Amino acid sequence: MNTVDLIARKRDGNELTREEIDHWITGTVERTIPEYQSSALLMAIRLRGMTGNETAILTDAMARSGSMFTPEDLGGFTVDKHSTGGVGDTTTLVLIPLLAAAGLTVGKLSGRALGHTGGTIDKLESIPGFRTDLSREQFLDLVRRTRLALADHTEDMVPADRILYELRDVTATVDSLPLIVASIMSKKIAGGAQGIVIDVKTGTGAFLPELEDSRRLAKSLVAIGAKLGRKMAALITDMSQPLGRMVGNALEVAEAIDTLRGEGPADLSRLCCELGAELLLFSGDAATRAQAVDRLARHLDDGSALGKFAELVSHQGGNAAVIDDPSLLPRAARRVEARAPHAGIVRSLNALAVGRAANLLGAGRFTKEDSIDPAVGVELVHKVGDRVEDDGLLAVLHVNDEAHLDKACRMVESAYDVDPQANPVAPPELIVDRIVGAS
Amino acid sequence: MNTVDLIARKRDGNELTREEIDHWITGTVERTIPEYQSSALLMAIRLRGMTGNETAILTDAMARSGSMFTPEDLGGFTVDKHSTGGVGDTTTLVLIPLLAAAGLTVGKLSGRALGHTGGTIDKLESIPGFRTDLSREQFLDLVRRTRLALADHTEDMVPADRILYELRDVTATVDSLPLIVASIMSKKIAGGAQGIVIDVKTGTGAFLPELEDSRRLAKSLVAIGAKLGRKMAALITDMSQPLGRMVGNALEVAEAIDTLRGEGPADLSRLCCELGAELLLFSGDAATRAQAVDRLARHLDDGSALGKFAELVSHQGGNAAVIDDPSLLPRAARRVEARAPHAGIVRSLNALAVGRAANLLGAGRFTKEDSIDPAVGVELVHKVGDRVEDDGLLAVLHVNDEAHLDKACRMVESAYDVDPQANPVAPPELIVDRIVGAS
Repeated sequence: MNTVDLIARKRDGNELTREEIDHWITGTVERTIPEYQSSALLMAIRLRGMTGNETAILTDAMARSGSMFTPEDLGGFTVDKHSTGGVGDTTTLVLIPLLAAAGLTVGKLSGRALGHTGGTIDKLESIPGFRTDLSREQFLDLVRRTRLALADHTEDMVPADRILYELRDVTATVDSLPLIVASIMSKKIAGGAQGIVIDVKTGTGAFLPELEDSRRLAKSLVAIGAKLGRKMAALITDMSQPLGRMVGNALEVAEAIDTLRGEGPADLSRLCCELGAELLLFSGDAATRAQAVDRLARHLDDGSALGKFAELVSHQGGNAAVIDDPSLLPRAARRVEARAPHAGIVRSLNALAVGRAANLLGAGRFTKEDSIDPAVGVELVHKVGDRVEDDGLLAVLHVNDEAHLDKACRMVESAYDVDPQANPVAPPELIVDRIVGAS
Repeated sequence: MNTVDLIARKRDGNELTREEIDHWITGTVERTIPEYQSSALLMAIRLRGMTGNETAILTDAMARSGSMFTPEDLGGFTVDKHSTGGVGDTTTLVLIPLLAAAGLTVGKLSGRALGHTGGTIDKLESIPGFRTDLSREQFLDLVRRTRLALADHTEDMVPADRILYELRDVTATVDSLPLIVASIMSKKIAGGAQGIVIDVKTGTGAFLPELEDSRRLAKSLVAIGAKLGRKMAALITDMSQPLGRMVGNALEVAEAIDTLRGEGPADLSRLCCELGAELLLFSGDAATRAQAVDRLARHLDDGSALGKFAELVSHQGGNAAVIDDPSLLPRAARRVEARAPHAGIVRSLNALAVGRAANLLGAGRFTKEDSIDPAVGVELVHKVGDRVEDDGLLAVLHVNDEAHLDKACRMVESAYDVDPQANPVAPPELIVDRIVGAS
């Protein structure tokens, strides 16, 4: 097959065939197609788009580019969850033990994202001793025996995504809907889960802030997963203000523990139950959404979800004593208060600004090589709709390195828009839309 | 400057700035911008286009990417001619001595194109001893002393074009109007000519067969040259049938000699005078087009153009005896006749098919590494509008390697569309349009 002809066909807006897409992905992984041809094709895809069929074929080809887990490997029907990323997104930490408590099997692969705070892997690693570099055998053994494991993506899984993502990053082709969908879904497909729920964030702190973009992404993710034989659901959820009250790695672990104990922030608790309910419906473990949500809420209240979390921590080498003694988690040297400019009601709380402040304090990565400070971050004392006093406490910054402290503090303070007229404000709707699909 | 941001700006359809284009071209030549970024940008340009301003800036940046000739180097006002390429295009061989005979100065740089027959360099090299690998000093010395030299492009001129053209060739980004214009004009600008005429071919044998495409190309070439301070003209000329009667390297040299002696085919002679007239108008050596055309026609008739050609051949090491004895040129071992299927009038003669046949016989290159057989080609006995007899002679193939002879012969025969009703057919209009511009 002639690669130039293939590029020309996409350049001219044609639909690529399965043979063409397989040729590209195989050549990418085997390095027989040079990067300069792949990047021209990526730009053509960015500007010409891809049909649903093409995107599904691309997703499948990428998933098959390295080693995979089958349902047989995992011991049966398993579920997975993906978030498009936001600020203070503690959901995965809560959701995976909660699902295991409800009887589902979760073998989750995760990564170390760039972002305002680390990824799920980074967050869990703030628990002393916790390891995510499991071998394939260790991971499968834990999933089969305990119904719950969380590991780092291994190098040999979905190599096509790693290669293409690096190329997209330096060729201005990241923001292509079909390429985003194929990147996300190829990893989910390779992970072997049969039921998948996606938390698509929308609002200032989201990867795609505009609702219409979030909705298109959610629809495409669900459609592509369904085409590839997965049971799929997506919730579009608010990320105009941060989720929960904590933004930072160890801070979010502590918040997850509170939530698993039934004492977490209402928005975080509710979102975990709503996301989990989709998966309980898929597995047949609940007849209605309401029943599924109730059942999950009970697992938060009765300690069974927290018990599963303790198991997860122990099985993966972590010190489960953190659950009862959060002081065992990394703690920042200093706490600095952000205060209100005047009395009033919080009209909005800019998630992106809070995220950037946490990143400045050291909670996230700007480049792949950056290290993360697990202890630092931002604790939000007030959120949208809350009444605050003049010079009243808005948030607490947890600080080690003070190099950017002033700037971070100003960013947090100006993230709060406080209405001095004190007109009542309803918090933004947490769940904006729901999109489901099954093969 | 961030290269990714630059790519993103073009991806989004914005106009690149001079700083951005300079950054790209400098980084391309210095190899600090990787090919995968350039190819993504090339595809963005292919799909988003460039404004006239951008194209002019790109042309200028490419021209300045290596060594250049200034009007001072060349000793004053000089002229140049470019053809977009066709079948049997012997124009340059005739035009440059003709212009020198008319008192203009021509320092022409040329290349070894891929194509049905070789480029001007290849054609001239079929003259025993003729050398085009002149040093910069030799070239300038000849231009200043004799007003006429023709040399190979040296490696150190317009390196950006060589690098980008190779990349375009393997990334499906060749057929971009601004990139084509910048590639052509950067070499003209670097060559130092102040007056430039472009022969833009149209019809089956042309690089761009459709008239509207040819017209857009001509307008853009003229506009960009004018923006960069050159006196510019373009003629859009017919290439639906081959120009003249010869297609092949030594065959075209022989035809050029006939034409310089005033005994050439009418279409070739006329086109050379029309193209040259544009340059005589620019130099102020003629007051009207008609005057300019007449004067050039006289130089063909009175032997002065042929005399200049003899000088060129001698000065560049060639055997000028070929002028009086064409048998000194390479001759093919065999002549094979192509014959008419029935009597009638030639309704059309497909230039592309004739060019492909010549290429099959060995007259052109399929890849850069191919060598050319200077002796072989196709001699057209009849052209559009001619009456032919049943089984009458249409053309003569000059053959050495017989491997593809049958196929080549069938291609030539079927290139002729002979109307058995013998309705009269006017030959296609030679000069379709004329576009001029000056800074």
